[in-house]
Amino acid sequence: MTTEDEIAGMRAVYEPLAESVRRLIDVTIRTEADATTVAAAKAKIDCVADELSTSLLPGSFGVQQAGDGQNMAWGNVVIGVRNPVAPPLIVHHREDGSVWADFNLNAAYEGPPGHVHGGVCALILDHILGATAHKPGRPAYTGTLTLRYLRGTRLGELHAQAQVDRVEGVKTFAVGHIADANGITVEAEGVFIHPRVSKA
Amino acid sequence: MTTEDEIAGMRAVYEPLAESVRRLIDVTIRTEADATTVAAAKAKIDCVADELSTSLLPGSFGVQQAGDGQNMAWGNVVIGVRNPVAPPLIVHHREDGSVWADFNLNAAYEGPPGHVHGGVCALILDHILGATAHKPGRPAYTGTLTLRYLRGTRLGELHAQAQVDRVEGVKTFAVGHIADANGITVEAEGVFIHPRVSKA
Repeated sequence: MTTEDEIAGMRAVYEPLAESVRRLIDVTIRTEADATTVAAAKAKIDCVADELSTSLLPGSFGVQQAGDGQNMAWGNVVIGVRNPVAPPLIVHHREDGSVWADFNLNAAYEGPPGHVHGGVCALILDHILGATAHKPGRPAYTGTLTLRYLRGTRLGELHAQAQVDRVEGVKTFAVGHIADANGITVEAEGVFIHPRVSKA
Repeated sequence: MTTEDEIAGMRAVYEPLAESVRRLIDVTIRTEADATTVAAAKAKIDCVADELSTSLLPGSFGVQQAGDGQNMAWGNVVIGVRNPVAPPLIVHHREDGSVWADFNLNAAYEGPPGHVHGGVCALILDHILGATAHKPGRPAYTGTLTLRYLRGTRLGELHAQAQVDRVEGVKTFAVGHIADANGITVEAEGVFIHPRVSKA
């Protein structure tokens, strides 16, 4: 088992690496550097990747268990602090069961020029709506998800929130939206399912 | 206007950089290197990002026009050859209007352990279904999108396809799915809208 201090130590090592790779992703898309500079950059990145590859987890990061029963979903594409693809979202839970997150989406999440890809809005909403149903040690999986796009979502500062509409047996019905400073851009509703587990 | 040769030249410069950053993302998530190695890697990545930042496109990549009227959506989060977050998908169009793509999703796209995040399936399906409605110079935007998750989608080799169900005025109704070697994992239907344009 991993203690809380050990987890904090691991996070202090790996989280800054992911943050630096996030910035590298952004400049990789936006750089206008010349061919020589880009080739030199690529060669250095390959060296760094080789150095980090001397010891690799097989497969994917998964969800690792900490000593206090907390899950470390550090590889998760939405919230993973070790995943440079994740913004990452920090999901806040309110006492009434609703959840919310404020986040910034940059050039890496683009679809139409200057706008968030509609599918990225779906990715964020799937996660935020699902978070209303997730319980520690009792994950919920998406059953269905429906998205209504009211208008384009510009890249930049955004807000997402979701709440439980009702619970029927193993099914949690959740609703939510993404909004910018001018209001809601995408609405969503979804059904999230807790797999039945045999009580040993 | 940019000639075809100039575009090929630009692609030869920037595409390998994005490919190297894709590999770096994967090893950033999976590395078990020690704190000293990771700190050294981070410092080198910061240097590379600085070098590439001497000249940056403002904002995001957008969709740049090539001389032949082709769009270069190189920053797109699903298909962008310059975007390390994109797998990237190569979308094939059949004569009957259907579209398909074979692709591989690694640790960077994880949700449940060993599985693709449900929201990433939504991202891929939004793009693939939308591609049935897209016409050069006449983009289509997602109106609604509904996803049904039949079972978990394991990380690895995957296939996505979509076709037009019907067209009603500016609306294209599309259906599609993601499949692994054992069959369909997620089904989708969506409505994609061509904004009315005033003919000048």
